[in-house]
Amino acid sequence: MYSDSEILKIIKNGISSLDLNKKPSGLYAPIEYIISVGGKRIRPRLALLTYNLFCSNIDEKIIYPALALEIFHAYTLVHDDIMDKSDRRRGQLTIHKKWNENTAILSGDVMSILAYKYLAYVPEERLSDVYSLFTDTAIKVCEGQQYDMDFEKDPAITMEEYKDMIGKKTAVLIACAAKLGAIIAGVEDKVAQALYIFGYQLGMAFQITDDYLDVYADPNFFGKNVGEDIVDNKKSWMQVETLRYTEESDKKRLFEIMSMSRDEAEAKILAMKEMYAKIGIKEHAEKEIKKYYISAMKSVEDIGLDEEKINRLKNFAEMLITRKN
Amino acid sequence: MYSDSEILKIIKNGISSLDLNKKPSGLYAPIEYIISVGGKRIRPRLALLTYNLFCSNIDEKIIYPALALEIFHAYTLVHDDIMDKSDRRRGQLTIHKKWNENTAILSGDVMSILAYKYLAYVPEERLSDVYSLFTDTAIKVCEGQQYDMDFEKDPAITMEEYKDMIGKKTAVLIACAAKLGAIIAGVEDKVAQALYIFGYQLGMAFQITDDYLDVYADPNFFGKNVGEDIVDNKKSWMQVETLRYTEESDKKRLFEIMSMSRDEAEAKILAMKEMYAKIGIKEHAEKEIKKYYISAMKSVEDIGLDEEKINRLKNFAEMLITRKN
Repeated sequence: MYSDSEILKIIKNGISSLDLNKKPSGLYAPIEYIISVGGKRIRPRLALLTYNLFCSNIDEKIIYPALALEIFHAYTLVHDDIMDKSDRRRGQLTIHKKWNENTAILSGDVMSILAYKYLAYVPEERLSDVYSLFTDTAIKVCEGQQYDMDFEKDPAITMEEYKDMIGKKTAVLIACAAKLGAIIAGVEDKVAQALYIFGYQLGMAFQITDDYLDVYADPNFFGKNVGEDIVDNKKSWMQVETLRYTEESDKKRLFEIMSMSRDEAEAKILAMKEMYAKIGIKEHAEKEIKKYYISAMKSVEDIGLDEEKINRLKNFAEMLITRKN
Repeated sequence: MYSDSEILKIIKNGISSLDLNKKPSGLYAPIEYIISVGGKRIRPRLALLTYNLFCSNIDEKIIYPALALEIFHAYTLVHDDIMDKSDRRRGQLTIHKKWNENTAILSGDVMSILAYKYLAYVPEERLSDVYSLFTDTAIKVCEGQQYDMDFEKDPAITMEEYKDMIGKKTAVLIACAAKLGAIIAGVEDKVAQALYIFGYQLGMAFQITDDYLDVYADPNFFGKNVGEDIVDNKKSWMQVETLRYTEESDKKRLFEIMSMSRDEAEAKILAMKEMYAKIGIKEHAEKEIKKYYISAMKSVEDIGLDEEKINRLKNFAEMLITRKN
């Protein structure tokens, strides 16, 4: 099997081979920019990994479809950043800031089509399964983003609603990546489906880790400002869990903290972390992440993978939940 | 063969059968709204017509892919209307006005994915051809919109540049519709390609007719205000042709007219129409539209269609270029 760093290199070379230096440059230059800015490349890495569990020859029929997921993911970020009015992403200016909003809309639009273009590299006999998997996933991702926006106006969503939202917005695309590699490798449905569940559970663990890092990351390694979600009252696993466990007598204080303004950012973060500590939110989150991780690993127990292969999935999963940024 | 009004009825029923009454309603209600607002349904009509030239049983394997083109077309309008800051479309409020910009972005995004969902109804052995045709087309449509925006800042684009832009922005999707019906009907490549060219030439005639109607439409039948393109100095066939044929001695006057403000809308339209009359722009445009129409009909001369079928294509083409709105 290829090592994770070899897989990353394949992805890097694949990205360089994408034909994005095209006209009109007003459309393609922003795409080249956002794709090169980087990121963890989690989705293509996972797709190449699950493919490589069953097939040794990594070539364009898996590389370009794996990159299609990266392009789609980047596209959702481009449009989400417009909707959230975010100026920076991965430390760089967002497209609508560096260029303008119209450019971000249209370059994003063509990226979602480019995802389909690169998906088409799959072997013809897998086309129907792959397109249907991807289309279902992409629809859910849009639905998840809509719920995320809806929930902004809703002070008290349940944990069930929150999990449904992150399931759609984040987990299904990671699940899709895991299953995509398996489908292209030509495994039987049962195995592909087990990898889908693996990816889904891992995606949930990944998103809750994201929410956790916002509060507890080491600022020396974290790419963003710690506590941003708290300052913005953003819906996160931590916030929803806190609303759930805060005792009635403390709720007034909780809402007071939530109504603190951006000018009091530091005090707000500190006060909220005190509330978290009182009900042990850090430990709750760690337990929840572990629960999803165990569940992910359990889903691939009985699909005939040898120890080396199980360990590769395990290492990948652990990397996602022990990361520092 | 089905008559044009029977085909329209099939489209209407097909649209009612789309599963758009879904949650989250913030995402799907705007889609249902914009799809129901209507329009001429040119693309699905043409796809059903070219399919029906070769196959008599119109069923879901052609109806849903034909509707996919309508959904895609509506999606481009939703996003174009944000970019152009248009408040109304077909006499109704645009989505970003009726709801807000974020809704228009995200509902549009899911529409482009829904287009792929409905395309997937084609027979499996046509899937690869159909996806590749559609993806190439969709990329060109985005490129055309980018050129359109680029050209807004460019006072003197050539007719060649203008035609390339409308070719991408408008003609390729009509060409795609004509070819889609033929592919799904299972005709040989040569015939499908002839219908693509038919659609492309017709699409050019259609767009120039659009530009023509902006100036010369009968206000009693025209859905929009006559002369809007003139008031906004919008790039149109009329404007590009005028720049090309206006004599040097008249150019100063032309630019004076173009710099007139919205407050002088009526005077501006009148003055520009005088310039048009001086160089016979109306006749130029009529000649150009006819040229494309003839070329469209010529492209389907030798593909073995009987007179009835040729007449159906002819009637459809004539309807597009003699329309009053």
